[in-house]
Amino acid sequence: MFFGSDNQSCASQVVLDAIINANQGFTHGYGDDQYTQEAMAQLEAVFECPLNVFFVATGTAANCLSLAALVKPWQTILCHQHAHVFMDESTAPEWFTSGARMVGIAQTHNKLSAKVLEQYLVQAGDDLPHNPQVGAVTITQANELGQVYSVEEIQSISQVCKSHNIKLHMDGARFANAVAALNCSPADITWKAGVDILSLGATKSGALCAEAIVVFNPDVKDTLMHLRKRSGHLISKGRLFGAQFSAWLKDQHWLTLAIHANAQASQLVKQLKSCTNVDVIFPVPANEIFMLLPTALAQYLRENGAEFYDWYPQTLPENIQHTENQSYVRLVTSFLTTDEHIENFITTIQAYQQT
Amino acid sequence: MFFGSDNQSCASQVVLDAIINANQGFTHGYGDDQYTQEAMAQLEAVFECPLNVFFVATGTAANCLSLAALVKPWQTILCHQHAHVFMDESTAPEWFTSGARMVGIAQTHNKLSAKVLEQYLVQAGDDLPHNPQVGAVTITQANELGQVYSVEEIQSISQVCKSHNIKLHMDGARFANAVAALNCSPADITWKAGVDILSLGATKSGALCAEAIVVFNPDVKDTLMHLRKRSGHLISKGRLFGAQFSAWLKDQHWLTLAIHANAQASQLVKQLKSCTNVDVIFPVPANEIFMLLPTALAQYLRENGAEFYDWYPQTLPENIQHTENQSYVRLVTSFLTTDEHIENFITTIQAYQQT
Amino acid sequence: MFFGSDNQSCASQVVLDAIINANQGFTHGYGDDQYTQEAMAQLEAVFECPLNVFFVATGTAANCLSLAALVKPWQTILCHQHAHVFMDESTAPEWFTSGARMVGIAQTHNKLSAKVLEQYLVQAGDDLPHNPQVGAVTITQANELGQVYSVEEIQSISQVCKSHNIKLHMDGARFANAVAALNCSPADITWKAGVDILSLGATKSGALCAEAIVVFNPDVKDTLMHLRKRSGHLISKGRLFGAQFSAWLKDQHWLTLAIHANAQASQLVKQLKSCTNVDVIFPVPANEIFMLLPTALAQYLRENGAEFYDWYPQTLPENIQHTENQSYVRLVTSFLTTDEHIENFITTIQAYQQT
Amino acid sequence: MFFGSDNQSCASQVVLDAIINANQGFTHGYGDDQYTQEAMAQLEAVFECPLNVFFVATGTAANCLSLAALVKPWQTILCHQHAHVFMDESTAPEWFTSGARMVGIAQTHNKLSAKVLEQYLVQAGDDLPHNPQVGAVTITQANELGQVYSVEEIQSISQVCKSHNIKLHMDGARFANAVAALNCSPADITWKAGVDILSLGATKSGALCAEAIVVFNPDVKDTLMHLRKRSGHLISKGRLFGAQFSAWLKDQHWLTLAIHANAQASQLVKQLKSCTNVDVIFPVPANEIFMLLPTALAQYLRENGAEFYDWYPQTLPENIQHTENQSYVRLVTSFLTTDEHIENFITTIQAYQQT
Repeated sequence: MFFGSDNQSCASQVVLDAIINANQGFTHGYGDDQYTQEAMAQLEAVFECPLNVFFVATGTAANCLSLAALVKPWQTILCHQHAHVFMDESTAPEWFTSGARMVGIAQTHNKLSAKVLEQYLVQAGDDLPHNPQVGAVTITQANELGQVYSVEEIQSISQVCKSHNIKLHMDGARFANAVAALNCSPADITWKAGVDILSLGATKSGALCAEAIVVFNPDVKDTLMHLRKRSGHLISKGRLFGAQFSAWLKDQHWLTLAIHANAQASQLVKQLKSCTNVDVIFPVPANEIFMLLPTALAQYLRENGAEFYDWYPQTLPENIQHTENQSYVRLVTSFLTTDEHIENFITTIQAYQQT
Repeated sequence: MFFGSDNQSCASQVVLDAIINANQGFTHGYGDDQYTQEAMAQLEAVFECPLNVFFVATGTAANCLSLAALVKPWQTILCHQHAHVFMDESTAPEWFTSGARMVGIAQTHNKLSAKVLEQYLVQAGDDLPHNPQVGAVTITQANELGQVYSVEEIQSISQVCKSHNIKLHMDGARFANAVAALNCSPADITWKAGVDILSLGATKSGALCAEAIVVFNPDVKDTLMHLRKRSGHLISKGRLFGAQFSAWLKDQHWLTLAIHANAQASQLVKQLKSCTNVDVIFPVPANEIFMLLPTALAQYLRENGAEFYDWYPQTLPENIQHTENQSYVRLVTSFLTTDEHIENFITTIQAYQQT
Repeated sequence: MFFGSDNQSCASQVVLDAIINANQGFTHGYGDDQYTQEAMAQLEAVFECPLNVFFVATGTAANCLSLAALVKPWQTILCHQHAHVFMDESTAPEWFTSGARMVGIAQTHNKLSAKVLEQYLVQAGDDLPHNPQVGAVTITQANELGQVYSVEEIQSISQVCKSHNIKLHMDGARFANAVAALNCSPADITWKAGVDILSLGATKSGALCAEAIVVFNPDVKDTLMHLRKRSGHLISKGRLFGAQFSAWLKDQHWLTLAIHANAQASQLVKQLKSCTNVDVIFPVPANEIFMLLPTALAQYLRENGAEFYDWYPQTLPENIQHTENQSYVRLVTSFLTTDEHIENFITTIQAYQQT
Repeated sequence: MFFGSDNQSCASQVVLDAIINANQGFTHGYGDDQYTQEAMAQLEAVFECPLNVFFVATGTAANCLSLAALVKPWQTILCHQHAHVFMDESTAPEWFTSGARMVGIAQTHNKLSAKVLEQYLVQAGDDLPHNPQVGAVTITQANELGQVYSVEEIQSISQVCKSHNIKLHMDGARFANAVAALNCSPADITWKAGVDILSLGATKSGALCAEAIVVFNPDVKDTLMHLRKRSGHLISKGRLFGAQFSAWLKDQHWLTLAIHANAQASQLVKQLKSCTNVDVIFPVPANEIFMLLPTALAQYLRENGAEFYDWYPQTLPENIQHTENQSYVRLVTSFLTTDEHIENFITTIQAYQQT
């Protein structure tokens, strides 16, 4: 019962088969190979536009290289204060950007809103060169509280950005889950809605190690080529990434996997809601569930083989009442989550309640 | 009527005379001169302890070199969200520290409190290496809202820091005004209260261009020697700084100047409070005054030669009621502020009220 | 006939099988898995000492993280002026180290020698903080001209380093080839000879994407944990690296592969020396061959399917006579190089000579 | 007898008087004052073109901010291997540029030549993104071996730069001495000869603390505004720099001072050449003298009050024969060097020879 993170799963068989298939003989290094070319072409097809792609091994690299390509070192980057890039990636954004400032805003909502963004921008001083100026905004889709931005929400944020000459980045570590949840076109929630650059994560959604920086804004292509190299993120046997992405995208495999992960989360939520003493906190459109439960129950679950993390207390909305005997935890489902995993989890909760 | 900032003043005659006196013949460069040595000895006398001193030309350099010496690049630095180093020094802290993160906290108070600091630290995740860890706290004395930390307040903050293995820096751009306001020993509000390193500003308080990094924690001496050089802050004719600091400290000249500046602020506040339509917002223990006034009056004052800045609206306490026709401004007095400057300012307000 | 680089090869079947085997079900992320633990234990067995290991995806990351852990930003790093880390990794060392200086020395030898190193150190100024001080030396084993440092040569360099308080890093992108060439214990040419930290490359020698930072000096463990994370080099599905390294090291598979690669290079050199108009430049103890050949022949070879790179002209020794009609090229063999590849290459040369 | 460096001198009386004069009352901070405006206008007159100026406190700041404005972090900066910015400014260039690489070239000449530069550029690899690309060249005028680049030499270097899309910076810490030596127009050896940006040093030539970044290339203005601030080099009481530069430039005071310094060097050289056992190494067009003398004589001179530095042995040309009993030293004259200083120095040498 691994609900710790979707990165606790292996790669899907389809993705693994592609690695096996690509691992034959010689080919050129550093991305100059057929697998990489094919994956790039597929990404253009999926996003319905010409684009530049830079494959890397981690989401932190994808996010921070993207941000470094968008901002000047003397600018700031705004994000939701609970954003993964702000809380869980050490000070990587500051390092990749040579010292741009990360600013976490919007503490009272579970998504960044255009309104809160606008409020921040009104207050940011404009006395140059003293006040640092906003260079980029980054939003996560699906985000760190399991929420999904609608097309309209992204458009609204993007309009605020454009009116202030600010670039927009999307952290898509769980982009597949968001597309599956919205049942939309990938283009609709990215470049058509004003996103300049996307970190497209395959690792959490069925790949073994494959992230893509998908660049809709052609201005930053050269910068990214150099930044990826000098940060050590240009791998030599590029076919590894190419093969994974190619298989992941082919025949909508990525969406099939994400739809399953989301469905398992929905099923789990449904059953959790029937359990007494367990409170699901946020809506669950994708594959992340946040809940309050008795700490003794959390312990019991772990003793019986369930894995999940205690979550940051500051992300719990202020209006949610809870006691000292409750734990606040996160559950994540993945393409590998079976009905049996869910059943076992629920059964364990029920067993506890009968003790 | 220059109330824009205390850095709008020239140097005091005593400080200027010291520069003139030092500007004779040859001496060694890079601080290996009698003036620098003398200033260092005086600083040890003033602070009643052995210490290391690094003179620099700006407060930004003093603050950011200090912070860079205290933290690792993967750590965070906490400050009040209205701190000068956070709002008005571009992204200098991030640059000097090679990408440590600045975090502004404590939005509902006009000083950083030990309690708010403790609350923040409880919430900061400790999952290494994902969550960035707090490396330093910086407080400003006197601070950006004109407030002065008491000995006890500094001790409380310092105790929280020590219990979490966090270093404590003090931005003393207006340290002289704080000492004058508290009528305390410089040692009492620095190393005796747990401060590791102090940016001691003379420029705002009677010097022409002279800031000192005063290091109570001997561990960081070598680091600062290198960082000052590689950031271009080791001046060749070091006598310039030595002479200024020596004269500024001698015979308590620095305190004489600060006492005057503070007294002029008190006098100005007293008279402002007798004016209708003018609301002084915070207590004024030192030399900074914040007030609401009709925007038309602000304009009238400026047209009649008064200089002062509109201040950041987010620093205005939420419980202060104000209208769209009011401006929120800052006035700063200095050693050069005369009774006549104050009288003129008040007279101009009165003249406006009679129109 | 791929002789461009050993990274043009796929992974060995043994390594691939390990990836397939590890790609099952759930496990913990970020290296907290059995495969990673097993690989670490094997590395300790191979190097016959306790050590800290950090797996990363690229040689650039391994080299530059290692160097960043060893030096201060205000120090210099010495290397052979033809070192890969100096010529082919963009300005990655400067970035990872927050601005330490790379200095390429030793232009007249095909290896860095203790003597040339000592000569450099004598000349380096010691006027602090003006003259940057040497913090580390990095050597490549086997190096960029195909040469292998003997145990005694490494010891001599290490003694110079120790006498000047300088750290020693080894770029082991082709470490396996060096061990195979020397037929020595891995310990003998690393920690026993004074190496502080090793970039151990598996990718060029049979893995798909797997490099290890092998840390003999325990002081830098924490720093590396943070630096790897903030540079985006901590992958989530750590089993990928663990499984590859585990299989690569097991039953001396790594050496078997390297012995083959070296043997193929020897065989190729032997046959090249029988060809007229082809001059092999350096001794070939490992798997890299440098040679002068008629440019028309180089073109003919490429037209007939051979891949190899023109090499940097400045690496050609001054005493080697050559004409404008000659090309200077590098050939690299790998575990995947067959007798047939070699035969085809030689046959093509012979065919050209008969035209 | 201070011949250690021209920065051992005080400011000239004219410059000091300007500081005294400017130190009156209130004015705006951060360069928004009449003195700064006046100095900028004078610089435009002196250089006969519109330009942007950024005043800073040190030559290191002027050089490194200039370079940081010209290059990308992934590029290299070429300089003579004996350049001050390379040998004596720690790793400041790497820090200011966020990790661009400094490369010292041209070891066999006392100036950088267009030919040697071209040779380097031919060899620099162009395999992107692996090989770092040259972004800027910096030359020193007058340089670290006392040499002055002619108009034609600068033009030749500039032409090489332009043909490779490389920017050209001039370190003019002793620019006044070079102009005095060449008796040319400042424009002739800067923008008219293809220089993009100049570090114009007044400190070594009669000011107390005043350097100007003189920007001929308007593209980098905004970047410099931000970089100066975030590196802590925007001083608050900007009149200090404005007043000094204004007085220094007025009525050709700067050239009067430099002509004197150069003349004293010429006179000293003339008399040194009449001394047995003293060998002047390079031509002395400006104010720096390099010589070999018996170590015992060097000691005797120092015991009798002479100050000068032993110089880097690697800067001594290979064809100069010398013994272990000789010291290699540098003497620098300044505007403050009197005939008496020279006479004392020579007399001391003669006294030694008679012992």
